[in-house]
Amino acid sequence: MAPQYAPSLRSCLAPMLLVLQLGFILIYAFYIEIESNVKVYGITFSNLYPEFQDVNVMVILGFGYMCTFLVRYGFSGSGFNLLVAVIATQWAIILNGIENWYYRGKIRIDLKSLVVAEMCAASALISIGVVLGKTNPVHLILIALLEVSGFVLNEWLLQTLLKVPPLNSIMMLHILRKGSEQPFEKEKVDRKTGLFSILGTLFLCVFWPSFNSVLVDNRTPGRRLGAVLSTYLALAVSAVTAAAVSSLSSPKGKLNPIHLQSCMLAGGVSIGVSMPAVHQPWEAMTIGFTAAVVSTIGFRYLKSHMLLAFNCHDTCAVLSTHGLPGLLGWLAHLLLQIKDCDDHTTAIRFAVFHICSLLITISLSLCMGIITGLILKWNFWRPPQDKKCFDDQAFWEFPHLAVQK
Amino acid sequence: MAPQYAPSLRSCLAPMLLVLQLGFILIYAFYIEIESNVKVYGITFSNLYPEFQDVNVMVILGFGYMCTFLVRYGFSGSGFNLLVAVIATQWAIILNGIENWYYRGKIRIDLKSLVVAEMCAASALISIGVVLGKTNPVHLILIALLEVSGFVLNEWLLQTLLKVPPLNSIMMLHILRKGSEQPFEKEKVDRKTGLFSILGTLFLCVFWPSFNSVLVDNRTPGRRLGAVLSTYLALAVSAVTAAAVSSLSSPKGKLNPIHLQSCMLAGGVSIGVSMPAVHQPWEAMTIGFTAAVVSTIGFRYLKSHMLLAFNCHDTCAVLSTHGLPGLLGWLAHLLLQIKDCDDHTTAIRFAVFHICSLLITISLSLCMGIITGLILKWNFWRPPQDKKCFDDQAFWEFPHLAVQK
Amino acid sequence: MAPQYAPSLRSCLAPMLLVLQLGFILIYAFYIEIESNVKVYGITFSNLYPEFQDVNVMVILGFGYMCTFLVRYGFSGSGFNLLVAVIATQWAIILNGIENWYYRGKIRIDLKSLVVAEMCAASALISIGVVLGKTNPVHLILIALLEVSGFVLNEWLLQTLLKVPPLNSIMMLHILRKGSEQPFEKEKVDRKTGLFSILGTLFLCVFWPSFNSVLVDNRTPGRRLGAVLSTYLALAVSAVTAAAVSSLSSPKGKLNPIHLQSCMLAGGVSIGVSMPAVHQPWEAMTIGFTAAVVSTIGFRYLKSHMLLAFNCHDTCAVLSTHGLPGLLGWLAHLLLQIKDCDDHTTAIRFAVFHICSLLITISLSLCMGIITGLILKWNFWRPPQDKKCFDDQAFWEFPHLAVQK
Repeated sequence: MAPQYAPSLRSCLAPMLLVLQLGFILIYAFYIEIESNVKVYGITFSNLYPEFQDVNVMVILGFGYMCTFLVRYGFSGSGFNLLVAVIATQWAIILNGIENWYYRGKIRIDLKSLVVAEMCAASALISIGVVLGKTNPVHLILIALLEVSGFVLNEWLLQTLLKVPPLNSIMMLHILRKGSEQPFEKEKVDRKTGLFSILGTLFLCVFWPSFNSVLVDNRTPGRRLGAVLSTYLALAVSAVTAAAVSSLSSPKGKLNPIHLQSCMLAGGVSIGVSMPAVHQPWEAMTIGFTAAVVSTIGFRYLKSHMLLAFNCHDTCAVLSTHGLPGLLGWLAHLLLQIKDCDDHTTAIRFAVFHICSLLITISLSLCMGIITGLILKWNFWRPPQDKKCFDDQAFWEFPHLAVQK
Repeated sequence: MAPQYAPSLRSCLAPMLLVLQLGFILIYAFYIEIESNVKVYGITFSNLYPEFQDVNVMVILGFGYMCTFLVRYGFSGSGFNLLVAVIATQWAIILNGIENWYYRGKIRIDLKSLVVAEMCAASALISIGVVLGKTNPVHLILIALLEVSGFVLNEWLLQTLLKVPPLNSIMMLHILRKGSEQPFEKEKVDRKTGLFSILGTLFLCVFWPSFNSVLVDNRTPGRRLGAVLSTYLALAVSAVTAAAVSSLSSPKGKLNPIHLQSCMLAGGVSIGVSMPAVHQPWEAMTIGFTAAVVSTIGFRYLKSHMLLAFNCHDTCAVLSTHGLPGLLGWLAHLLLQIKDCDDHTTAIRFAVFHICSLLITISLSLCMGIITGLILKWNFWRPPQDKKCFDDQAFWEFPHLAVQK
Repeated sequence: MAPQYAPSLRSCLAPMLLVLQLGFILIYAFYIEIESNVKVYGITFSNLYPEFQDVNVMVILGFGYMCTFLVRYGFSGSGFNLLVAVIATQWAIILNGIENWYYRGKIRIDLKSLVVAEMCAASALISIGVVLGKTNPVHLILIALLEVSGFVLNEWLLQTLLKVPPLNSIMMLHILRKGSEQPFEKEKVDRKTGLFSILGTLFLCVFWPSFNSVLVDNRTPGRRLGAVLSTYLALAVSAVTAAAVSSLSSPKGKLNPIHLQSCMLAGGVSIGVSMPAVHQPWEAMTIGFTAAVVSTIGFRYLKSHMLLAFNCHDTCAVLSTHGLPGLLGWLAHLLLQIKDCDDHTTAIRFAVFHICSLLITISLSLCMGIITGLILKWNFWRPPQDKKCFDDQAFWEFPHLAVQK
């Protein structure tokens, strides 16, 4: 093939997908069965089902819409998003069940396993947002597999070493994002946002309360209600604040649609990470406010500096949308928890644990990021040439005529 | 700045948003707490949650999509819609809790408060549909605040003076809309509807049953089922009828997409207002049928006359979509209730009450409309010039290049 | 009117819609009432409501989005889809209640009736996918009415003759599709897929688990959980497989967006038909895998052959998306059920029954297809000329200026 075309994926993508998928089917055939005891931990099927659907909508539809924002890359954005989501979910179900398998020889899955697996997949999807458009689908699938493994490993480490309750470690998801950005990239992007992307953000916003509340323990009455209300308020406040800060920081007082989008998400991320310690509406609102301010400022000033300093490029501005707010949420969690402690000893012990868990997460994600970067740099995977980046044409065939809509 | 640009919003929008938001956070910090007793009035969290999500989808996604129908105004439509929705919701939570605060010193919020507040916000969103594109976001937020206050005041008046049960007064929402249209406007619009808007209507349709049933009392078994079925049937009938009437009234027998949209909504509005008195499917269907006929005819003949007679312009045709069907629903409620009464005295007493509630609502909404109009005419808010109306460019910065998609 | 215009629908569509709708209202007024006993078969309103909403979203939003994929036909696609859906649902409620009416004189409807009716409507919507763009709305409504009648008749026959439990016969829906394709068509299509269509597919995918599980009996604990998990896994596997096969079968290794779409749906169809016999995750995954392979190959090679062999044209490739996977699911059901049988007699008896039910369904659908074809060929309905096919302009009036978005 002439060098002006992207390298054909035929010899690479198809075998990889087939091998992966057939492997999954074999593993599922031997080791996975459906949980027959439907009432686990007091959560019945009917109680969990609507929130499972909401998470499902977020992962498939919300991220799918979000990823259509590159004008010539809509098909790839939503199509690859779907592929990565379903592969990551299948992989996460297996990884999450390993402990179970070790003790019982079989992995039993129920609706909750699927929800947890979709959250791991969400972590992978956020991660590929960094390199979207600059990679081919083979890369994306590799990243997703590594990412999910790292996420599960991190969770297991935290639980084993620090006895962190499962919920907290799940919320590390957003912090974990920071590591995988180092890799490569030097392309120039003509970023053109479309309405689709705004609508995708709206999807994420609408269903975020479910995302944050679905794994909250049902046994303490009122906790889920608190989670839903806090998330809603934090999102609301961060939307308003983002608009204000965006207008203030623009010389003509105009709004930047990307600020609005990424700051609403930042609010959701922060509140998600600090959820276990939030008990009052105003705490949630303050967190949302701070997250929006930090994220907007980070967005305006950080992205270009990152490009200069580390020679690295971040398509979806994942650092300011997920990295900084994740850290902020972690800080808020720490402060609120310390405020609630009665004596000094507990407070200090909690702080030490909390800082340790951050350090573990960061070092693990740096390692994973470097490993991922090295593997992806390997030429075997046929990265697209620079001039073919952000172009649907490289990966999709349009039977009659391509339309860009 | 040269006069061909819209006046900068920097000195106006940003401070307003910040002051509002910080004020809300302070009020929430001192007076609002989360209800810890999760089972109020027999409605548990799990029962209410899916319908809360549906209302949320309607308010944020449904209206957001709807508002993208102006071709060069998509960002503003959906972005401002979001801003207004979250500000109005926060404000409505405070206002709805005032009575509570008076007696107990604290406002306790739960999922139901949030649902009620979102409905107030929906009333504000319908209201801003009238002036969409001809105002700047500062106007919209002012309208929303006034509208929500008027709505809550109206509800309180009706409850105090006439002992109307809460549900009925909530349903006044659509009737209330009529007042705020008087204000200003003389711009000519190039109205171009897109597919987005049709899809937004579909969203509203799909979730309307939840909207109408979510506040129906759970204690009478079957009432919610009735509300869902009636709403579904009324919407179905009004869609079919709208297509028929639209085709009949066009010289070439073609369909008008705007008729289809606004008449489906009209059916939903009518059935919503008359819901408490509807007990049989055919009653709901007849109401849907009449609403569609009235609304289509109103749409074809009324809009241009309004423009001539009152020199007022109604971007989203709110009068024929919400005003007339609201009145129709009110009439249907009256007739059905009288039909169900056994003796004359009760019937007459009900009729008097019902008419009084309409009169109060109309006079209040006229007052609010005039006040709103006067405040908005004040030049301080920097209304956009006529040539900048319906243009995203005035309010949004497009980092690299604007795309209209 | 000059011959270059499509024949006016004024004298045909409007009266038809009005007569149908007024007829429905009359029938509903006399024979239909709302079920007052809310707890039927142990399914309460709150349990069923979220899944009803999901089915509703699929039928109205999912199919509506899907049908916008023809570039100049978006309004017609989504608008007619809505019309057909609501008419078919009303008609199906009546037909499904006939037995009830025969014994009790009244048809009582509840949420479950509505769900079943929407599924019948879904069968009609799939059916009109074959002729979309080559017919006018009058045709579509006729097809929908006939299709729903055939579907209900088929279900009734199977239940009466073979004592098939209701659930199974519902799942015949997808198989039934095969018959109605014979009719006419020779137009050449410039098929241009848009992003909307991909997003519609995502909608269908996300809510498919609800579609397959909503009618599963709640009494056996775990069955619904199984249905949801199996559907999810089958969809995931078929998406991955479709990408692999699509890339393999393309000379340049590119992906075809239409393959991805139709094969995910094929996976959902197959698993839906074979659901009652699927008990293990790997069974679901294998079915999804096979369905995607068969459907992709069918898509690439069958459509053009069909065009040559039978001179028939299938806009949405319904045969490979619904026909083949339906048969495949039927086969899978047969094999799995036989595997589970203990002795030979039961197995053979089941196989005979199963084959009979397929034969009845196929012959009935062939008959219906021929009848439908004959009726539609009748010139009275004013089919659009060939050059006006796939054009919104023929049916919609655009008040100010048409925009294609």
